[in-house]
Amino acid sequence: MREFCTAILLGIFLLPVTGATQPSDIRANPDRLEQRIKALSAFGANADGGVDRVAFSEADLAGRSYIRGLMREVGLSVRMDTAGNIIGRREGSEPDLPVIMFGSHIDSVPGGGNYDGDVGVIGAIEVIQLLNDNAVRTRHPLEVVVFTDEEGGLTGSRAMVGEIGDTTLSVVSHSGMTIGDGIRAVGGDPNRLDLAERRPGEIKAFIELHIEQGAILHDEKFDIGVVEGIVGIRWWDVTIEGFANHAGTTPMNRRWDAMISAAEYILAVNRVATSMSGGQVATVGRLHAEPGAPNVIPGEVVLSLEIRDLSTAKIQRVFDEIRREGERIADARFTPIRYAEIDVASPPAPTDEQMRRIIAASADDLGLSFKFMPSGAGHDAQDMAQIAPTGMIFVPSVNGVSHSPKEFTSAQDMANGASVLYRTVIAIDAGALE
Amino acid sequence: MREFCTAILLGIFLLPVTGATQPSDIRANPDRLEQRIKALSAFGANADGGVDRVAFSEADLAGRSYIRGLMREVGLSVRMDTAGNIIGRREGSEPDLPVIMFGSHIDSVPGGGNYDGDVGVIGAIEVIQLLNDNAVRTRHPLEVVVFTDEEGGLTGSRAMVGEIGDTTLSVVSHSGMTIGDGIRAVGGDPNRLDLAERRPGEIKAFIELHIEQGAILHDEKFDIGVVEGIVGIRWWDVTIEGFANHAGTTPMNRRWDAMISAAEYILAVNRVATSMSGGQVATVGRLHAEPGAPNVIPGEVVLSLEIRDLSTAKIQRVFDEIRREGERIADARFTPIRYAEIDVASPPAPTDEQMRRIIAASADDLGLSFKFMPSGAGHDAQDMAQIAPTGMIFVPSVNGVSHSPKEFTSAQDMANGASVLYRTVIAIDAGALE
Repeated sequence: MREFCTAILLGIFLLPVTGATQPSDIRANPDRLEQRIKALSAFGANADGGVDRVAFSEADLAGRSYIRGLMREVGLSVRMDTAGNIIGRREGSEPDLPVIMFGSHIDSVPGGGNYDGDVGVIGAIEVIQLLNDNAVRTRHPLEVVVFTDEEGGLTGSRAMVGEIGDTTLSVVSHSGMTIGDGIRAVGGDPNRLDLAERRPGEIKAFIELHIEQGAILHDEKFDIGVVEGIVGIRWWDVTIEGFANHAGTTPMNRRWDAMISAAEYILAVNRVATSMSGGQVATVGRLHAEPGAPNVIPGEVVLSLEIRDLSTAKIQRVFDEIRREGERIADARFTPIRYAEIDVASPPAPTDEQMRRIIAASADDLGLSFKFMPSGAGHDAQDMAQIAPTGMIFVPSVNGVSHSPKEFTSAQDMANGASVLYRTVIAIDAGALE
Repeated sequence: MREFCTAILLGIFLLPVTGATQPSDIRANPDRLEQRIKALSAFGANADGGVDRVAFSEADLAGRSYIRGLMREVGLSVRMDTAGNIIGRREGSEPDLPVIMFGSHIDSVPGGGNYDGDVGVIGAIEVIQLLNDNAVRTRHPLEVVVFTDEEGGLTGSRAMVGEIGDTTLSVVSHSGMTIGDGIRAVGGDPNRLDLAERRPGEIKAFIELHIEQGAILHDEKFDIGVVEGIVGIRWWDVTIEGFANHAGTTPMNRRWDAMISAAEYILAVNRVATSMSGGQVATVGRLHAEPGAPNVIPGEVVLSLEIRDLSTAKIQRVFDEIRREGERIADARFTPIRYAEIDVASPPAPTDEQMRRIIAASADDLGLSFKFMPSGAGHDAQDMAQIAPTGMIFVPSVNGVSHSPKEFTSAQDMANGASVLYRTVIAIDAGALE
């Protein structure tokens, strides 16, 4: 049944593809991808086999320089926008058409791995190489992008959609520099970020190839993830008030122990998140008890509550149910619970439905298995979705490990992703995206 | 029934009492006690109405000087032992008899209150005053003691029973000084602590008057607590191992969340402690999650488990049952649990049974209501119990508040305690203790 549907999709979307070789024959080169990933991983390499290449660091500057070199090698004309985003352009045959853009980032978290972001950038360059090797001239201009400081808060893509203000520029990044100073250090101009903005209509489509950073594809043995969207995130600090008292002199039945209520609350969070159907997640990752001494009954517990889902309404529904359960606990144990929402909320960013179908059809045509799935992590694609039809291609992360030197994606999986990216670009260029 | 039994007790123990006035007529003076507590509270007074008079601080030195003055005022001959314990002695009529010792401490926790320890010292001086005022000469010599650094680990009483080693002397106390340097600062000699030791037989009895530091007497409206013993304490660091992972990309059913297991564990601790009969308490006062970020599933939780009871066997039974419950949680959630016992264990220190009866009879004779109860907090009396028959007299703490500027005990309650102490000393002197 899936194959039947896909055949129809392919029939619809891939008919107008042009080029010297049938795109289904064109495959990315696993060895070349792996060799370049390896070369990139030298910049900021740490003793654990991963990288410390936080945005704006020396290692980041060196890695960016390496990427600009690769871009030039494959014939791209390279520029940098005022946000420090590196943009490598290949002109199309019809100069008035909007650009098809694809790429990712090369900055890492502290103690990061060699695949997060990197696969999308190296894979995008591979697409250009395949076009060159097969003498394919696209109608649309193409742009390979390396976004600035993804791990520090999607800085480059937010600048591209006009969302960086002075507050963000003054935030101190992992490098120790403020984001503003960091942008200056990589060659951008934080005072003229308006020049980095792209308008709706300028970009025909944006596509990001990325490792999954979760274990779903790996565990379920799928080659490709077709991303349905990037989940929205809301985060609260939840304060549970008890009464601090001497752990020796206060009998069990005279306690208002905030830790006991917190324990019931944590289990309620888990129960609510697992009892609803769907892919929502809710997490208590941090807990602080006051005064936090072994011999004092906790008088207060502050814990973090984070909820993610593809649907804003679903996030609210999960929170409402948790709050109801919390009220029951607070009433039963005489330990009031209050909420402070932390302003990091990012709304869900669904990908473009046509883009999903094009990516799925591309995978299927290549004989690759695929799964529609949400992205639980944030990506530059969520910003780009505001100004262009956006799609994301996931490849498996072994055991779902990410943000760790142990992060690993095989050369073949990287090549599969790059092949799907190539085919998707060709399909969009050929008119598959209305 | 209680009055009947007490009458018998009184008949047995109080017959040999001598003195110009019947001791039942002699009562401590609430106003004098309150005035002296107030005077003492000036040393280290903080803005919240409590005191910062940690051992070895300037405030402690000043407070000690004030107490030495009071001791001299009531005719005691004052000395200091090599551990810095202040000892005020009143000779008895039979020089060969062992000493009856009573007292407490005047050092506070940081941000402490005006009654913890202080009531026992001021109350002991009141007893001497009552003896003077009523021209009572005891057969036994009497010693009023102010122990050094109670709040830092029962330093003075441990020295008196020969338990301070070099490791303890090098511990940095709240004052910033090591305990060794602190002892030197108050005038002791940490190199000759052997001279501070007292041998079994030297002390006929030790009695400590203290505020309850819990709410049992206050809530149940008893005047006097007859302490059955000081509970033993054991403390473990409990480590629960999960698997740290991305809170966005890891579905609920693929998590090994150490926080969820910790929550179940905390509830199991509470369930075990409350489901057994008896006065045992078990507390989780501290919890640390790694990495402790709102967007990461906790890969490890370390929490404190503290268990107290009057019986060593009961503590072990509570722990064994908690450990069994923990194994069930660990197995069900695939989150191993391991224990590291922290070496602060203090074994239960029961008070002397005859002493309890003498204190109870004294209270009853004064028309005061009393309750037999454990002490959940540690006291110098637990050390003294190793070398002498020991008793403790509790007076109510309003709302059980302690180690806080809000600590409060009424003048009348202090006077009740001092009256019971007086009567107990007289009874022991008269031969009530075999």
